[in-house]
Amino acid sequence: MQKVYIEAYTSILSFGLAYDGLSTMEKLYGKSIIIADREMVEEKVDDILIEASESDVAFLVVGDPFGATTHTDLVIRAKKLIVEVKVIHNASVMNAIGACGLQLYRYGETVSIPFFTETWRPYSFYEKIQRNREIGLHTLCLLDIRVKEPSIESLCRGKKCYEPPKFMTINVAIEQLLEVTEAHGASAYDENSRCVGLARLGCEDQIIVSGSMKDLLHFDFGPPLHCLVIVGELHPIEEEMMEFYKVK
Amino acid sequence: MQKVYIEAYTSILSFGLAYDGLSTMEKLYGKSIIIADREMVEEKVDDILIEASESDVAFLVVGDPFGATTHTDLVIRAKKLIVEVKVIHNASVMNAIGACGLQLYRYGETVSIPFFTETWRPYSFYEKIQRNREIGLHTLCLLDIRVKEPSIESLCRGKKCYEPPKFMTINVAIEQLLEVTEAHGASAYDENSRCVGLARLGCEDQIIVSGSMKDLLHFDFGPPLHCLVIVGELHPIEEEMMEFYKVK
Repeated sequence: MQKVYIEAYTSILSFGLAYDGLSTMEKLYGKSIIIADREMVEEKVDDILIEASESDVAFLVVGDPFGATTHTDLVIRAKKLIVEVKVIHNASVMNAIGACGLQLYRYGETVSIPFFTETWRPYSFYEKIQRNREIGLHTLCLLDIRVKEPSIESLCRGKKCYEPPKFMTINVAIEQLLEVTEAHGASAYDENSRCVGLARLGCEDQIIVSGSMKDLLHFDFGPPLHCLVIVGELHPIEEEMMEFYKVK
Repeated sequence: MQKVYIEAYTSILSFGLAYDGLSTMEKLYGKSIIIADREMVEEKVDDILIEASESDVAFLVVGDPFGATTHTDLVIRAKKLIVEVKVIHNASVMNAIGACGLQLYRYGETVSIPFFTETWRPYSFYEKIQRNREIGLHTLCLLDIRVKEPSIESLCRGKKCYEPPKFMTINVAIEQLLEVTEAHGASAYDENSRCVGLARLGCEDQIIVSGSMKDLLHFDFGPPLHCLVIVGELHPIEEEMMEFYKVK
């Protein structure tokens, strides 16, 4: 392998790129690793592909290699340039979520909850949750990650300045979810609906807590990444797992 | 780690337990590995848990550790016996399916297609596929695996004899899917509906082919495991990937 990139904006590495994580990986692989930030992946990916057409290049991602559209796009570009792609699969929140005890085949469509702003409060995830709940399915909610977002100020001035990274907490997600359902007459779910909050899934210090939205609204889950499941109908074995993780 | 088990009936190890796979793993870990077959997992699991309460025991599975209900059940039993469980996540068909280029968040509920028999032809997966298709979502179909099934003859005679292992091919799955939709007036899908067939996903010799059900009905995908996606509405980037994998 001549070059190793790691993509660092659609997720975060649990042991921290900014701290010792990267050097740990570099020691393990015996290679230096180049961090591919949003700018590089979105604007300079053709340079990486040109390298890959002449030598072996690894492109590491956190989670599943096809978890983000941007990675599928990379594969398409490679195929068009007749650059051979070999994929090594990995665990992802899409299946590691099984840790909370709800069966993977009982989930409906996954939804993404974006940070609401003063002027942008999209409610489109509501309909998907409602459909899942109508047929008793669980809903995995992926919470917004904002890394390397150009600041509005910098956009106006035409030079690149970035907002500090922002990761949505379970608390903010529930706050937004409740705002949306109230606007709809709370027909799909309400503050008494059962949820499971998961923080740092797969890490040594992961936390899994089940309870009503109201219960979890102010629960401190600690550092990112967080995700949330809105629970559908429970099978007995799922019910037992929910009990183990019940909020104290 | 004092003892290492590998569960060998809810899936198959791609490099083959029966051949060199097991010894390759034993060499890698420097430990002998005990194959836990269906009988052991379903009937003697308490013995494993008793060992685990006194020493470190590893229980390996193929795919995600929570992919099968039987594994969640094992965790519940362990928790009840206050045996500490540490989970190491892994790729699973539930996310590796991303390899075909359809976005993971655009899948609806996953369905399982069981082998039809003369007397047992359950049509229950049809309704789920229909619901997914009504809202434009893809459907992952997991195909039946029958390993260590007691033969009917042996059940009658009261001694254990097993049927040879049986893995459903994409061809049989499509045949059954078409039988079911015809019985329903072909309202959810028909032989012209677009699918993706995947064989040996994640292996060196994996095959991914997209086409109509009719196209794939007689396509030879080779050895197991197979799985099938019934395609929903396509985004442009998904459409491009489907083209790459189009049946010749």
